[in-house]
Amino acid sequence: MAASSGARVRAAVVGTGLIGGSVLLRLHRAGLDVTGWDPDPATRLAARGSGVTCPDELTEAVVGRNVVFLCGPLPTLPQTLPTVAAATGEECILTDVGSTKSGLAALAAAHGLTHRFVPGHPMAGTDRAGIGAAEPDLFAGAAWVLCPSAGPGLASFRRLAALILEVFRARVVPMAADGHDAVVALSSHVPHLLAGALAGAAGRSTLRDAVLALAAGSFRDGSRVAGAPAERTANMLLDNREYVLRELAGVRSFLDELAGALADADAGALTAACREARTARSALLGRTFTEFRRTFPTVPGDRPGAVAGAPAAGGPGGPAGSPDELGFLLALGSAGGHLGGCRVSGTTVEYTAHKPAG
Amino acid sequence: MAASSGARVRAAVVGTGLIGGSVLLRLHRAGLDVTGWDPDPATRLAARGSGVTCPDELTEAVVGRNVVFLCGPLPTLPQTLPTVAAATGEECILTDVGSTKSGLAALAAAHGLTHRFVPGHPMAGTDRAGIGAAEPDLFAGAAWVLCPSAGPGLASFRRLAALILEVFRARVVPMAADGHDAVVALSSHVPHLLAGALAGAAGRSTLRDAVLALAAGSFRDGSRVAGAPAERTANMLLDNREYVLRELAGVRSFLDELAGALADADAGALTAACREARTARSALLGRTFTEFRRTFPTVPGDRPGAVAGAPAAGGPGGPAGSPDELGFLLALGSAGGHLGGCRVSGTTVEYTAHKPAG
Repeated sequence: MAASSGARVRAAVVGTGLIGGSVLLRLHRAGLDVTGWDPDPATRLAARGSGVTCPDELTEAVVGRNVVFLCGPLPTLPQTLPTVAAATGEECILTDVGSTKSGLAALAAAHGLTHRFVPGHPMAGTDRAGIGAAEPDLFAGAAWVLCPSAGPGLASFRRLAALILEVFRARVVPMAADGHDAVVALSSHVPHLLAGALAGAAGRSTLRDAVLALAAGSFRDGSRVAGAPAERTANMLLDNREYVLRELAGVRSFLDELAGALADADAGALTAACREARTARSALLGRTFTEFRRTFPTVPGDRPGAVAGAPAAGGPGGPAGSPDELGFLLALGSAGGHLGGCRVSGTTVEYTAHKPAG
Repeated sequence: MAASSGARVRAAVVGTGLIGGSVLLRLHRAGLDVTGWDPDPATRLAARGSGVTCPDELTEAVVGRNVVFLCGPLPTLPQTLPTVAAATGEECILTDVGSTKSGLAALAAAHGLTHRFVPGHPMAGTDRAGIGAAEPDLFAGAAWVLCPSAGPGLASFRRLAALILEVFRARVVPMAADGHDAVVALSSHVPHLLAGALAGAAGRSTLRDAVLALAAGSFRDGSRVAGAPAERTANMLLDNREYVLRELAGVRSFLDELAGALADADAGALTAACREARTARSALLGRTFTEFRRTFPTVPGDRPGAVAGAPAAGGPGGPAGSPDELGFLLALGSAGGHLGGCRVSGTTVEYTAHKPAG
């Protein structure tokens, strides 16, 4: 499936705003056969301006494709996924780029699409929106979560992972859908709440004008994502409500400790809490990795095309992908690791994995 | 006093870490006569390596100077200020770069130094510390708060403002000391608490490793200042305790609104709150200014040297600077404006002021 593998990739991107537009431009620049579609005529026109085929009808854009990236806003995906599934063949892998994964994974299972829908989430973006802000190199070096499932879904995962590694030069992080949602609640969604609270409180303050005048690095950085479109942020938070509220409780608890030590003028406790936070922050910057390889056998029936018409795969009883392989992938993601390579040849798959050292 | 004014500037910088080192290098690069001093021998050695005279004794570094920047850590300033004042003449202007201003301003008044101590705070910095991280261009374009006081202190303010505008190319923001502390509580100190809470909670989370792996822009930016040295952050917060707790309450209140709307799955209320935050954040980026000039008469006795041996100046009964001038300066800072020029010629001072438009 990968660009250089010889297999013919025919990709489509549905929804070509900031993320979808960046995916589209990158696939196009890599020389792949790619079509785009967006509900907005002006956006389609802009995509055509980049030299990409962009029909007026969604069905026309996805028919005959063997990989489709669903990049529309979160609330549209429950409708778009079955529509695109119906318009494409069983050999066509579907993926999305939404910021939460459990809901759509469950919906895909309900529609019998687990064997060819691989939930995805590239951890990149900007405060801006729209195809005008799209950048083909947006994902280089970024984490790109893919959620493998058992059974023939694992073959779809491998092929998509290989394509993303090769074309986008992203780090593919394998995670279960609900594991992903729990993690991004803290790594992405709670920071949006904090940024919003900081910016919003400044806006309401009687000191507002002077605060803006003295807003240096800490305020600018701390409020940056409050500049993102309000609907996009609200949708993202609502879609991951329970995990966000749970992780927010942890952040509030640490904030209470800091504020309590400050209120008590307890320099020792305050410094200790600041030091604990600094250690965690340093761990973010100082991450080093150990590279290793793991090989697994692929299973004969282990191709999406082979299960055409079969019931939704997955679970221990389905056409087996190796449970060892799935376990290895999910353990790698939980440990903070990622894939740097995924190569299927003959009846084996070889992963190049990077695991945090120490 | 300004570098090009013909008057001979003999500057000293006491405490040559990140901020002091940057001040020192900038003054040196501007061709001024500057000495440095730091309690740490290795730091003095590093400063000498940059070609700056850096005696082993503090007194030797400041004697005969006519402007001294006190750039040591906050807790050291109450001791350093009277020491340096005793070692310098009445014509010598003293300033500091500490992140809170009320305490030191009161201490200066108690020591009869209001006429020549101008509390200062350049709003620039990095997460790093030490002279190795110093950058002479750190302050270019940054806000640099100076706190003018009535009476002969106003003449010291003018001369220091002119020097900072010319040499550092900073925006001089005139503010009362307590006004400054209220503002930075929200523009700088509360963001440190939020960043600490975010990083600290991630460090304690069972999902820590995966959170670090998926930490993209929002987490990185939102936790950035948690990487600052813990003691420095704790000192800063403790020194501005009451204002920080007050402004934190406002931020928590907005956070409660966001979290409440999320818990209620109230998309309308959540989107509205996100939109309000976005408007405030946009105001930060979209600030435009109107430039205008204001001229005030200077008062004959209005020089630091003229009040040698006099009791602490300032207050309506002291040797008068124009109250109009002080009122103009403080109103400009409260409105989010700043000075771009300060020129004393003969018996007048002309300010070039920039006030937020609209």
